[in-house]
Amino acid sequence: MALQSFVEVHPDSHFPIQNLPYGVFRPGPSAEARPGVAIGDYVLDLSVVQSAGLFDGPIVGKSDCFLQPNLNKFLGMRRPAWKEARSTLQKLLSSTEPTLRDNASLREKALVPMNKVEMCLPMVIGDYSDFFSSMHHARNCGSIFRGPEDPIGANWFHLPIAYHGRASSIVISGTDLIRPKGQGHPIGNSPYFGPSRKLDFELEMAAIVGPGNELGKPVDVNEAADHIFGLVIMNDWSARDIQAWEYVPLGPFLGKSFGTTLSPWIVTLDALEPFACDAPKQDPPPLPYLAEKISQNYDISLEVGIKPAGHKNSCIVTRSNLKHLYWTLTQQLAHHTINGCNLRPGDLLGTGTISGPEPESLGCLLELTWNGQKPVSLDGTTRGFLEDGDEVTITGYCKGNGYKVGFGTCSGKILPSSP
Amino acid sequence: MALQSFVEVHPDSHFPIQNLPYGVFRPGPSAEARPGVAIGDYVLDLSVVQSAGLFDGPIVGKSDCFLQPNLNKFLGMRRPAWKEARSTLQKLLSSTEPTLRDNASLREKALVPMNKVEMCLPMVIGDYSDFFSSMHHARNCGSIFRGPEDPIGANWFHLPIAYHGRASSIVISGTDLIRPKGQGHPIGNSPYFGPSRKLDFELEMAAIVGPGNELGKPVDVNEAADHIFGLVIMNDWSARDIQAWEYVPLGPFLGKSFGTTLSPWIVTLDALEPFACDAPKQDPPPLPYLAEKISQNYDISLEVGIKPAGHKNSCIVTRSNLKHLYWTLTQQLAHHTINGCNLRPGDLLGTGTISGPEPESLGCLLELTWNGQKPVSLDGTTRGFLEDGDEVTITGYCKGNGYKVGFGTCSGKILPSSP
Repeated sequence: MALQSFVEVHPDSHFPIQNLPYGVFRPGPSAEARPGVAIGDYVLDLSVVQSAGLFDGPIVGKSDCFLQPNLNKFLGMRRPAWKEARSTLQKLLSSTEPTLRDNASLREKALVPMNKVEMCLPMVIGDYSDFFSSMHHARNCGSIFRGPEDPIGANWFHLPIAYHGRASSIVISGTDLIRPKGQGHPIGNSPYFGPSRKLDFELEMAAIVGPGNELGKPVDVNEAADHIFGLVIMNDWSARDIQAWEYVPLGPFLGKSFGTTLSPWIVTLDALEPFACDAPKQDPPPLPYLAEKISQNYDISLEVGIKPAGHKNSCIVTRSNLKHLYWTLTQQLAHHTINGCNLRPGDLLGTGTISGPEPESLGCLLELTWNGQKPVSLDGTTRGFLEDGDEVTITGYCKGNGYKVGFGTCSGKILPSSP
Repeated sequence: MALQSFVEVHPDSHFPIQNLPYGVFRPGPSAEARPGVAIGDYVLDLSVVQSAGLFDGPIVGKSDCFLQPNLNKFLGMRRPAWKEARSTLQKLLSSTEPTLRDNASLREKALVPMNKVEMCLPMVIGDYSDFFSSMHHARNCGSIFRGPEDPIGANWFHLPIAYHGRASSIVISGTDLIRPKGQGHPIGNSPYFGPSRKLDFELEMAAIVGPGNELGKPVDVNEAADHIFGLVIMNDWSARDIQAWEYVPLGPFLGKSFGTTLSPWIVTLDALEPFACDAPKQDPPPLPYLAEKISQNYDISLEVGIKPAGHKNSCIVTRSNLKHLYWTLTQQLAHHTINGCNLRPGDLLGTGTISGPEPESLGCLLELTWNGQKPVSLDGTTRGFLEDGDEVTITGYCKGNGYKVGFGTCSGKILPSSP
């Protein structure tokens, strides 16, 4: 029988004792931010657990890593510390362990109802890089922007292409987004200027970097997994008209930098390990620095819903899966450092839009509507691109035997441009 | 007669009392980092000045902004605070003011010989963006990478193109750089892989952002100058072979992210104001959000020297000037925020390579040697691109009447790739 917690967890919950994802929360509006893990409908306050001396292992027991307003210190402590903390917490929350279960006053302090807390960004993000690792997405975007002949560039199959993203405008799920203004392709002599008319979501996941590397010291691809703490869901909002006009020759800039939304709970690689699956075969074979002894993705079901203003329900517009990635998370990280670039704890590596092979598994409206030409249906209305008032919600989970290891939701609503 | 300091300042010094650039330094290897200003051959320790209560103005007098290990707090305090601090310091250091001049023990504590200190990055850099604002550079790069017909894209004259850079690998002048490894264009079936064979410098300057802006709230171009604290010299090291192979379609990534060097002293816009000059006329006229009431550059002479290993002297390979920029610093900043992107105090906005119109004013080896085809002479040897052991030094200053307002040096030496 599967491990069970004394905290009641519904079988459909994303947060059973098998998951224990890390986040940062405020128990009340004026309270200080502190780390927690999700368990059922509760958040376990790790500052309370650490202050009570319940982390009794040799590494975390001597640290103040959970008495911080973010997870950066814990992220930098490496996998043995992460494993020790996970083991302590699984024991503490298990149905057979009395320490917390039978201590009403401690339980009262340590377990906060999830609907009472405000979630924060779980870490300070020094740098955010975004990859372009789905072959289906690369092929579709290439076809739309550059034509159907040879839609994927010659370099794409040799390296995980990426660009630097904007760290300052990364926000936590639930934050509203103002429709960006900007320039688009000229109509007549002068560029279009005004609110973006092609506002899109991008279904992505992102890896949170654990220990970093020194400048000048690349990370070996076979050790790269030890530099990844866990994953979140990410919506890399994109203004396609701004992007299309600005991106040659230096890449996307204002078409992306107005906002990027993260789901609040970091699901650890340890919790995801049971859902590892073989990555697609790579042809041509990667260069030696990208050749992995074990090349794996994770089987994470993902879906995106759009809820127009005034609608009661979100309408699912796509279903995809992380397993479709061509370049693995570890290849992305190793490639990022091969030139000596240093990563730091808390850095964010986005996967790029995760599109699957089927038309109903495409990861953004650009692809789903073929640049607005074939609008998608939404419960009585249609969308080419996002309209003001639309709320986009991404969710995802792994299906275990009788439980789910899930990510919760990553959502944001579009507000109109200011006049 | 020009304002004079009681600290002796050679007429060729970059740091007379008219300059007073801000930096962060350690007086000894184990000492804590603290802010300072440069005066002649000395650094004035601002933590000492603040602790002694000598900042007596209404804003800085009540702040602990100089009891910090970086300048971010001061940067966020806005122009009135900057003007007040400058006025206090110019008075304190002037030849006619006895407070510091005649207090030997305070002078001893506050004035540290510049050759004894270790300079640090002056601020925590949240995000680093790099523009592409020199028309001459854009034209030359376009000709080299995409051919001489139509070398500048249609978008270039309508918007200051930029990309997000890597913040983690920004280092202070004097830091050695390891030659990056990476992929280059295939020779036969497989991409080249190994140490970059086209390592280059890029002569740039960068603006340091003062107060930021809220996400969703663009900065008006006519108020943008109040968001810029000052300028530094920047060498945006570039691996041209890595860049050329990777940059389509998402822009430069590993070709740049292995290192970027900053000069240590931030010269304030207040110190540069006497050297403001008209920016080039823009045709077509910019869109209204980029149209400035006053469109100005600064007349800052810049030069780059290369000193090969074993050589005694640096050999000047180019002389340029900030005044050649097509897009002004304020247009860059306003454009950066027009989509609502938030800037934070300490963010860095690079100008892009500053090339002038003449062949001897080009800002990188890519242009100077036309992609390695016409090597430059270096005192008995030649260079297509940089070789191991080469030390590149950029310097720059404004010429006042009997004094210079200078930036000191921005230098770095290339170490071989690790095996």
